[in-house]
Amino acid sequence: MDEHQHRLTSYLAAYIDELVGNGVDEVVISPGSRSTPLALLFTHHHGVKTYINVDERSAAFFGLGIAKAKQKPVAILCTSGTAAANYYPAVIEARYAKVPLIVLTADRPHELREVGAPQAINQLDLYGKHVKWSVDMALPESSPGILKYAKSSAARGVSMALSAPAGPVHFNFPIREPLIPALDESTFTPGRRDKRVINGVRGLTTEMRDDLLRILREKQHGLIVCGPGVDSSAIDSIMAFSEQYGFPVAADPLSGVRSGLHSKGNVIETYDAFLKTKEVLADLQPDIIIRFGSMPVSKPLTLFLKGLPDVPYWVVSSGEEWQDPTAMATEFIYSDEGSFCHDLMAGAEVKDSGWLQKWKKANAISRSILQADDQPWNEGKAVKQLVEQLPEGASIFASNSMPIRDIDTFFFNNDKKISVHANRGANGIDGVVSTALGMSTGHTPLYLLIGDLAFFHDLNGLLIAKKYGLDMTIVVMNNNGGGIFSFLPQASDGTYFEELFGTPMDLDFSSAAAFYGADYQLVKEEIDLASALSLAREKKGIKIIEILTNREENVAIHRNLWNFVSQEIVSELKGNTP
Amino acid sequence: MDEHQHRLTSYLAAYIDELVGNGVDEVVISPGSRSTPLALLFTHHHGVKTYINVDERSAAFFGLGIAKAKQKPVAILCTSGTAAANYYPAVIEARYAKVPLIVLTADRPHELREVGAPQAINQLDLYGKHVKWSVDMALPESSPGILKYAKSSAARGVSMALSAPAGPVHFNFPIREPLIPALDESTFTPGRRDKRVINGVRGLTTEMRDDLLRILREKQHGLIVCGPGVDSSAIDSIMAFSEQYGFPVAADPLSGVRSGLHSKGNVIETYDAFLKTKEVLADLQPDIIIRFGSMPVSKPLTLFLKGLPDVPYWVVSSGEEWQDPTAMATEFIYSDEGSFCHDLMAGAEVKDSGWLQKWKKANAISRSILQADDQPWNEGKAVKQLVEQLPEGASIFASNSMPIRDIDTFFFNNDKKISVHANRGANGIDGVVSTALGMSTGHTPLYLLIGDLAFFHDLNGLLIAKKYGLDMTIVVMNNNGGGIFSFLPQASDGTYFEELFGTPMDLDFSSAAAFYGADYQLVKEEIDLASALSLAREKKGIKIIEILTNREENVAIHRNLWNFVSQEIVSELKGNTP
Repeated sequence: MDEHQHRLTSYLAAYIDELVGNGVDEVVISPGSRSTPLALLFTHHHGVKTYINVDERSAAFFGLGIAKAKQKPVAILCTSGTAAANYYPAVIEARYAKVPLIVLTADRPHELREVGAPQAINQLDLYGKHVKWSVDMALPESSPGILKYAKSSAARGVSMALSAPAGPVHFNFPIREPLIPALDESTFTPGRRDKRVINGVRGLTTEMRDDLLRILREKQHGLIVCGPGVDSSAIDSIMAFSEQYGFPVAADPLSGVRSGLHSKGNVIETYDAFLKTKEVLADLQPDIIIRFGSMPVSKPLTLFLKGLPDVPYWVVSSGEEWQDPTAMATEFIYSDEGSFCHDLMAGAEVKDSGWLQKWKKANAISRSILQADDQPWNEGKAVKQLVEQLPEGASIFASNSMPIRDIDTFFFNNDKKISVHANRGANGIDGVVSTALGMSTGHTPLYLLIGDLAFFHDLNGLLIAKKYGLDMTIVVMNNNGGGIFSFLPQASDGTYFEELFGTPMDLDFSSAAAFYGADYQLVKEEIDLASALSLAREKKGIKIIEILTNREENVAIHRNLWNFVSQEIVSELKGNTP
Repeated sequence: MDEHQHRLTSYLAAYIDELVGNGVDEVVISPGSRSTPLALLFTHHHGVKTYINVDERSAAFFGLGIAKAKQKPVAILCTSGTAAANYYPAVIEARYAKVPLIVLTADRPHELREVGAPQAINQLDLYGKHVKWSVDMALPESSPGILKYAKSSAARGVSMALSAPAGPVHFNFPIREPLIPALDESTFTPGRRDKRVINGVRGLTTEMRDDLLRILREKQHGLIVCGPGVDSSAIDSIMAFSEQYGFPVAADPLSGVRSGLHSKGNVIETYDAFLKTKEVLADLQPDIIIRFGSMPVSKPLTLFLKGLPDVPYWVVSSGEEWQDPTAMATEFIYSDEGSFCHDLMAGAEVKDSGWLQKWKKANAISRSILQADDQPWNEGKAVKQLVEQLPEGASIFASNSMPIRDIDTFFFNNDKKISVHANRGANGIDGVVSTALGMSTGHTPLYLLIGDLAFFHDLNGLLIAKKYGLDMTIVVMNNNGGGIFSFLPQASDGTYFEELFGTPMDLDFSSAAAFYGADYQLVKEEIDLASALSLAREKKGIKIIEILTNREENVAIHRNLWNFVSQEIVSELKGNTP
């Protein structure tokens, strides 16, 4: 081993050892030259599972998916140049979705920067404000001080990625040729960890608690909102809090609250349907709102909350965030969600039992209509069928745009421990296939519900499924274009609409399935979906179920259903109250 | 029209009118909601050609390709969120390849920024240091002053994108709902342009010229290097300069110098082969180097230049650049390339005619071997066949990694006016299909030479070909993985090599062709390529010719060929010179 190889190996191995020691044991690698020493060392480390993913955009979303599924930091590694820029969409999603992603980019050494060397771009601060920390590492050296620095950087990066709000960190590694490290038994010292971070949890002081309790005790009609990203370990506490105060819990499908074994007596899941009905809004106005997680998907809920200007609106989160798109929040409470509930339960009592009943009744009426089987076959009904047939313990990943909205409408409270996921950091339709595949490494069986546009966008993501034996059922709603735009005002005018927004692609996904070696079934009618799902359950690998639907019909049927819910709500609810 | 719609329409129409007035008449749009008013207005403008491209990563490269082909600024437009982050790879390529790209991103208005609103990310300075100018535009207003500001921003952005070195500029447009502008006859005032930029050209002063002439007159053995990006209008002047001084011209395939009707007597095109031969290097050492364009692709040439520490090395470019990866340049000359040649031709004379002959002889020997038809069938030979069969006036786009290197070896001087292109800003393998398709809007017939990895990376780019009737022949060298890595030191060790670098994908591109409605032919043997190319010439649309090759054989054959060139060079050249 020459001096260069010694420096290269000891420096990068020290860094990797410390990453692993701090819990980073999966890395997604995209092939490249400059990243060779890091790629070889990760592969050589017994404590690391590696995935190879050619398209860096997909690779980054795949890493994001693993991190989301396993609730741990995951590393992604690529070579220099635009390869690293392909990570950007997933890095941004990680930032807003609070996912700990360790982004590793190899770079040319300083003397080859900004001088027209091949595959050399300015990689310093490549991800701008979208990473929590960005480090341009020193060139490899082997002095004890520099090895300490490498380890310290690794430990610190993992800690920063994990601390609330979690997010991506970026390490840029300038490396000189030759790029071959020494790979032998003594390369690593596994089990050794230099630094550990014990990251305390935020809680309320007695003064803070008393101050909040003073406000809370004056209120009778509280509304708890659980949005995406509620801490799953806090759900029981939130339910207990809700029961002691007699407050309904409006729970987003991504909150984790609609499904599982916890008590769900106060969980309201069809608010998106009944809050569209103006006539009932007055009866349901809370005098305090307490939100956990970010804003729910439902637009009617957002508009409803926006229409309550004088109501205290608390937003509880464990990190310093400003999740307030309506600008109506009055208190930002940075505290662990579970402790917050415990702290504020002292002396809680139900003051108006009728309040909770009103919400539960509206919910019951909406749910019975939405659950009825008499609507015509359309996207919504297909989603309803899919949800009904999900096996115990299954997970569903919903793409953005229409799928997550249909899930919001048709994913009813249940005890099946079904987890629902989506990329709701930046709500993109990019990288959805890869994120879901990443999640499938930790959640099985996994179902991906996706539209044709998003499916097309990240078809590349499917490449690695065969190699790693990944298992996922993909239900593609093919309405030949961007279905959600048909719900927007753009659609009513019509000028240039089909050209700009309908985006018909006329794609036959059966040949895409053939290209990726995936199983494929086409569903044209209602009766075929159940058997397609049951066939898919019997097979391993990627199973694509394509459902052909119609955009215009879909809009009409959704609107009819919502109108019907409104009518029923008005007649039942307003008929009973004077 | 209400006040909001009036503001929205007049502001954005003023901006677009001024863009068009300053030469931006093609825009690539990716569907989205927030970008609706800009998308509708561009579509409504009679002077603008629009393309719809769903995947923003491909869309941006497609726009880059149009701009490269037509040598003019092209706009790309997308919605808010990660959509805009997908532009990043192409934006970076545009920066380093000096392509004027007008990047337009729609954004949420200020009150919805950084508060957890859906699809809202921090888009300010989204592309960091990789754009020449980044503007967060004001919200739409309709006062005369603000309309002037909108027009001024547009004109200034186009000018900045175009001025040397050209590159991307970014406009971020915050827009409030409702998003529908008024579309009627009076929306635009076509033909009206507020501002024009007359951007002078850099030239040498008399003092500068005399100073450089003093150095030049002392030299006898000059070497002119033409790299990628030489100003095509300067080629005749460079040739005249070369002839007057008796200096050989080492011309990269991307310099535009190897093909066309200009005089090519002094053009050396096989230096990559003979500069691998140590024995001849001493005879070919220049006493001055004058480079136009950026560094050529050839590694042997780079190493050769790097081994000449005491030789004046001039780098001539029309903008302020620092293209000096070897750090050996001694003079950076910022001047129009054509004027530089004219200025320095005063009193030029050939001092040693033997010097030019040595280079021409080495070139002739190498060329005759490389052109011989007796090598076994392999990737190189396929490229040679492809090049030989290119029709007059054709263009070829070479992907990075192996294709551009094979083109360097086998694209010989010719009079066919064949233009050769590649993405050599950042040398990525991403976005190649889309860039080539963009170029096909201005260059026909276009041939894309690409490996399986790069082809896979941007398969999505093929989607728009059918819709816009694009015509391109794609020759895919499928060696089932990353062929170039087999030439690197990583390959010789072998540990983890196939896993990390070989990247076998086992893909059958015939089903990809079916998915995109492309014509497909498989070539397994030498004899089939000619007929495949001739069949492709008779059809319109996307024609994929997949050539199956073998990575290990390919390396062996390339190495054998290079060794043979070396032997012949040594025996012929050294046998003749004492």
